[in-house]
Amino acid sequence: MPKIIHIITPIITKGVRSLDDVAPLTGSNLEFRHSILDKGPSSIESEYDEALSVPDTIVKAIEAEQNGADAIIIDCMGDPGIKPVREVVSIPVLGPAETSMHVAAMLGQKFSVVTVLDSVVPIFRNLACLYGVSEKLASIRSINMPVLEIEKQLDKTQEMLVAASLKAVQEDGADGIILGCTGFLGCADKITAHLKSEGIDVPVIDPIPLTVMTAYALATVGLAHSKKTYTPPRKKLIVGY
Amino acid sequence: MPKIIHIITPIITKGVRSLDDVAPLTGSNLEFRHSILDKGPSSIESEYDEALSVPDTIVKAIEAEQNGADAIIIDCMGDPGIKPVREVVSIPVLGPAETSMHVAAMLGQKFSVVTVLDSVVPIFRNLACLYGVSEKLASIRSINMPVLEIEKQLDKTQEMLVAASLKAVQEDGADGIILGCTGFLGCADKITAHLKSEGIDVPVIDPIPLTVMTAYALATVGLAHSKKTYTPPRKKLIVGY
Amino acid sequence: MPKIIHIITPIITKGVRSLDDVAPLTGSNLEFRHSILDKGPSSIESEYDEALSVPDTIVKAIEAEQNGADAIIIDCMGDPGIKPVREVVSIPVLGPAETSMHVAAMLGQKFSVVTVLDSVVPIFRNLACLYGVSEKLASIRSINMPVLEIEKQLDKTQEMLVAASLKAVQEDGADGIILGCTGFLGCADKITAHLKSEGIDVPVIDPIPLTVMTAYALATVGLAHSKKTYTPPRKKLIVGY
Amino acid sequence: MPKIIHIITPIITKGVRSLDDVAPLTGSNLEFRHSILDKGPSSIESEYDEALSVPDTIVKAIEAEQNGADAIIIDCMGDPGIKPVREVVSIPVLGPAETSMHVAAMLGQKFSVVTVLDSVVPIFRNLACLYGVSEKLASIRSINMPVLEIEKQLDKTQEMLVAASLKAVQEDGADGIILGCTGFLGCADKITAHLKSEGIDVPVIDPIPLTVMTAYALATVGLAHSKKTYTPPRKKLIVGY
Amino acid sequence: MPKIIHIITPIITKGVRSLDDVAPLTGSNLEFRHSILDKGPSSIESEYDEALSVPDTIVKAIEAEQNGADAIIIDCMGDPGIKPVREVVSIPVLGPAETSMHVAAMLGQKFSVVTVLDSVVPIFRNLACLYGVSEKLASIRSINMPVLEIEKQLDKTQEMLVAASLKAVQEDGADGIILGCTGFLGCADKITAHLKSEGIDVPVIDPIPLTVMTAYALATVGLAHSKKTYTPPRKKLIVGY
Amino acid sequence: MPKIIHIITPIITKGVRSLDDVAPLTGSNLEFRHSILDKGPSSIESEYDEALSVPDTIVKAIEAEQNGADAIIIDCMGDPGIKPVREVVSIPVLGPAETSMHVAAMLGQKFSVVTVLDSVVPIFRNLACLYGVSEKLASIRSINMPVLEIEKQLDKTQEMLVAASLKAVQEDGADGIILGCTGFLGCADKITAHLKSEGIDVPVIDPIPLTVMTAYALATVGLAHSKKTYTPPRKKLIVGY
Repeated sequence: MPKIIHIITPIITKGVRSLDDVAPLTGSNLEFRHSILDKGPSSIESEYDEALSVPDTIVKAIEAEQNGADAIIIDCMGDPGIKPVREVVSIPVLGPAETSMHVAAMLGQKFSVVTVLDSVVPIFRNLACLYGVSEKLASIRSINMPVLEIEKQLDKTQEMLVAASLKAVQEDGADGIILGCTGFLGCADKITAHLKSEGIDVPVIDPIPLTVMTAYALATVGLAHSKKTYTPPRKKLIVGY
Repeated sequence: MPKIIHIITPIITKGVRSLDDVAPLTGSNLEFRHSILDKGPSSIESEYDEALSVPDTIVKAIEAEQNGADAIIIDCMGDPGIKPVREVVSIPVLGPAETSMHVAAMLGQKFSVVTVLDSVVPIFRNLACLYGVSEKLASIRSINMPVLEIEKQLDKTQEMLVAASLKAVQEDGADGIILGCTGFLGCADKITAHLKSEGIDVPVIDPIPLTVMTAYALATVGLAHSKKTYTPPRKKLIVGY
Repeated sequence: MPKIIHIITPIITKGVRSLDDVAPLTGSNLEFRHSILDKGPSSIESEYDEALSVPDTIVKAIEAEQNGADAIIIDCMGDPGIKPVREVVSIPVLGPAETSMHVAAMLGQKFSVVTVLDSVVPIFRNLACLYGVSEKLASIRSINMPVLEIEKQLDKTQEMLVAASLKAVQEDGADGIILGCTGFLGCADKITAHLKSEGIDVPVIDPIPLTVMTAYALATVGLAHSKKTYTPPRKKLIVGY
Repeated sequence: MPKIIHIITPIITKGVRSLDDVAPLTGSNLEFRHSILDKGPSSIESEYDEALSVPDTIVKAIEAEQNGADAIIIDCMGDPGIKPVREVVSIPVLGPAETSMHVAAMLGQKFSVVTVLDSVVPIFRNLACLYGVSEKLASIRSINMPVLEIEKQLDKTQEMLVAASLKAVQEDGADGIILGCTGFLGCADKITAHLKSEGIDVPVIDPIPLTVMTAYALATVGLAHSKKTYTPPRKKLIVGY
Repeated sequence: MPKIIHIITPIITKGVRSLDDVAPLTGSNLEFRHSILDKGPSSIESEYDEALSVPDTIVKAIEAEQNGADAIIIDCMGDPGIKPVREVVSIPVLGPAETSMHVAAMLGQKFSVVTVLDSVVPIFRNLACLYGVSEKLASIRSINMPVLEIEKQLDKTQEMLVAASLKAVQEDGADGIILGCTGFLGCADKITAHLKSEGIDVPVIDPIPLTVMTAYALATVGLAHSKKTYTPPRKKLIVGY
Repeated sequence: MPKIIHIITPIITKGVRSLDDVAPLTGSNLEFRHSILDKGPSSIESEYDEALSVPDTIVKAIEAEQNGADAIIIDCMGDPGIKPVREVVSIPVLGPAETSMHVAAMLGQKFSVVTVLDSVVPIFRNLACLYGVSEKLASIRSINMPVLEIEKQLDKTQEMLVAASLKAVQEDGADGIILGCTGFLGCADKITAHLKSEGIDVPVIDPIPLTVMTAYALATVGLAHSKKTYTPPRKKLIVGY
């Protein structure tokens, strides 16, 4: 039986993510499902946006597990809601930032994140700290491109990602690059090629495919998050949710 | 003119907090205001509870600033919403966990947190990490007492806090204690007295009074959070909030 | 086309590892190959044993890549030779210790390693340091069972692993367990079951299956180790190898 | 009754500090007292200067407590004598470096210190380490201005502080600035204004007012340093002091 | 020509240290000189004692260099005055704590300090932090024996040192022991022998002989402390010294 | 009786090292012996080269101890085989990288390593991590000069070492320099002189003389590596060595 990976894109904007994006990964053992939010922000570019994305992400995650998912991926590099969602479900819940940072740490000594806006730089620094990989973080560089502009300005985005990645390697000492927004899906190959043409052979991580395959790995070997740390919440009166 | 400290208790339960609790601190230069939530959990004992407390905490914080507050305190030791709230207001926003941890680090070499339930232990470990004081954290001990039971079982609570504090000092190497729930307000004196009777003279931090006075200090000298790190969110379509 | 995962068991002892051990993971997209060493130690229980396992491991790795492998796994929790092997091949090279430690860091806050002998405890401490996860390491506990005795005394081994895991969770603060020898393959289920019967629900990582699936994930998304860090060695005169 | 904050300026030079400097903070609840040294250096710009300032600072601190002070502030950014003074008195003893560093850590993610001379840069690095905030320290920059020249060259000093602060934010990643000499008292507003005119909105900490108000906060809530760590010295023969 | 090692015992008590203590190290290349203080404490057991030992230690160090010493050793495990003394002389200045901690870090993975009194435990923790070896520190244990009692109660002292060392190895994970008072000179052999009789073969560092030989090593190869970090103090008015 | 220091140059190339290099250190108490390898690489510039140097280094070390050596030095800045060699002998085994890094940490706050090739930069980063001195490491700079070219291009090598050292001090914040290849023996004086002519007075460590004298220090005071951490390997079947 195939493993069902449920991707929650924690925004209300339709069309930003489609399952076509991960179709190349689908095989006889892997099936995808997808949700976006009914309530929440149209994109995530701040702690404020994240905060408003979490309550409905929790709802969608509970539904995903009830509908038979084997693992959940939160499709945003802020990994919003990853901790409360792990409390309310028993299947593995993966964030692309956490997964990419740990894999980058395995592929080299120091990674850099190249991301959308200055406003999310502090978020990545906090995540690196929480995930225990601060000493593996070379730098965080932003290209000042709002999330919902990426697709509209794809060529410019890719050029700027190449430039930021080059600086990360040459000035900041990175030996690996993490694309710091799941909206950059599909840009890794072009960046890798450009870096190689400059004689730089470092991994460029496209977070969603990597996270999907890592979720598949965990589901296959039967590992999930520690319930000692992610204890199911006690029942209590809650108003408004 | 007095400084106005606005306390947001990020739960829906009435009567847990009253301004009488901080009345002894009121002087000619200090005035208090208070909000509780319309939407959210009845108490906070998990990441899930925190997540559902944040959206309305943001609303109450914006209102507090509009109504002239000079500083905001989030009245929960999980410091829920501290980062998004700092993005949406310009006045200082203090969390009792962050304040207590930094002051404890100033008063000694290693502090312990004694708190309500095992389920919040991982939250404190994450906060110590984010606040940059992990190496000052001796231990986190819980007494297995739900938040809304504290007042009902006050004597038992205090006894267990004394016992946990003793172990923190004698077994974990702590030289200071942080009460790990704002619901423990008022318990510090008894614990201090008991520890002294055992020959142990260490500070026991009651977070809310300390955080109130620190907020007053920041408001008086005109310091607030860095807007480079807590950038105001970009305007965008948001549904449901 | 399936991904070919080549497992190198870096010892000379036949029969310790068979591809039956990973057969449950084989699917239409995954194929296994296996080597043991011609020169080297019969088991690995010290830095000395590791040192003597590396030269022939390098040879086997070069052959594996030449024969079309998509990823290589070094089947020993000391990850012997992982760095030089990454220099001489271009495909991903995974060690079970590195993989397990990073995944354990994703599944909880603090992991413990339960391993064979006191003599390998310093090796794990060094690896946690090099892999950047020292602050996620709760403890390393040994059961004083030589590698080649595991299979002969399997029941005793499992009992001692359960006891050590319990202590790791209850005394050392672990919220996840890594089996610290690839010879423990297959013991995780029993330990998990026993811990659950004591009310402890934490992940118990069986390193080889996890590492196999992680190798498959990397091979599928096309990621390999940074050649900036693992530079191919310069050609030079070498005698004796 | 007002809280009495006793400021010890640990040098022999008259006129560098006057209580007028903190007069704006005086209210019905706050009263100031002041000492300078009889024996010691004319300014503090090295470990050597610090060492010679400590013995008489201890004397002045004991006198301050005997005369009814509620808290003591050591008016030098090297925090000279802070540890022995805490051993010999029971009231809170605050250093402006320690206080500023912990508050800066609360106001953002990374702070820089802009100070007088290269010779004190190693001192700040040591203090950040001891206070447990090394990972929050972005950089230390000096303007090469001797302490006793500050007032004589105030305009030049302020210009150079602005330039150093700009570099700290733009090149070193700081999101907050600490003025690294208590002789810079009063310069923060001008720097803040200049940075804002360049679009940079970060807190600039003037250490003495902040430390005064923090001392007031601690005195009000009844917290002092841990006597477990700052044990009163055993009585013994001492010659020359 | 022999290297001249000047030992400054930073207390006023005569007879605690004699050059006979290091006589076994004297060879054709090594000559010893010795000073005690004219002003200062009779022993060092607190930050307060240290503070009062520093001014005259500086005087004795300047004299030692002027009289041709090739290196200076400060004969106290608090390393009092090590930083200001390095500013005022150009020859190497070694502290037994710093030297022992770095050598212990070379001889194993984790060392413990066994020392005289609880009151100096925080001092060692600070030194380990400043010297950059905190992660190598397993524990600090005290035997509650005042410095000037050691010689009077030598048998009891040695017994308690053995007991504390055993606990450090067996309970705290130490693989090396540092004797945490230079007054323990000569006790290492007995402790080593006792530990070996219990099957524990770990190095026990007697700080003064090790520091003497390290000073000899530095003097022989012509290395001294960085004058970039230990800048000579600027000339200025100083009263009372 | 003199102490016998045995230097193992872990390569097969004759003439790169001669005991003349350390002759100035020889005195009545110090005697040198030397081995090179029969099997291994001609120089060490990668993890691969290191791996192939270790097995015969182990052989030479066992022989050195059997022949009466008092301490062993592995003459390569990668410290290859330092851990397994410590398991198989009882005398002190020193690596020049470990020794230089710890001594550099004692001589200042931050050191830089200036080395031969980019390919060894990751090796130094790993060593600094393992030796526990990462926070003391300012930078690692390479001059792109293969090991066996150093002597042939000595003037160019020294010029480039000066240039790299200057950048390390001025741009990276180093206050001490470690020569990152034992083939640079003898270059320190020229670099020190050049730096001083630019007003920079920092220690420049020539690793082999320092390591020799440190080995002499340890042998004299009777300290060796912890056998708790470097346990003698269990006897077992080994093929090919």
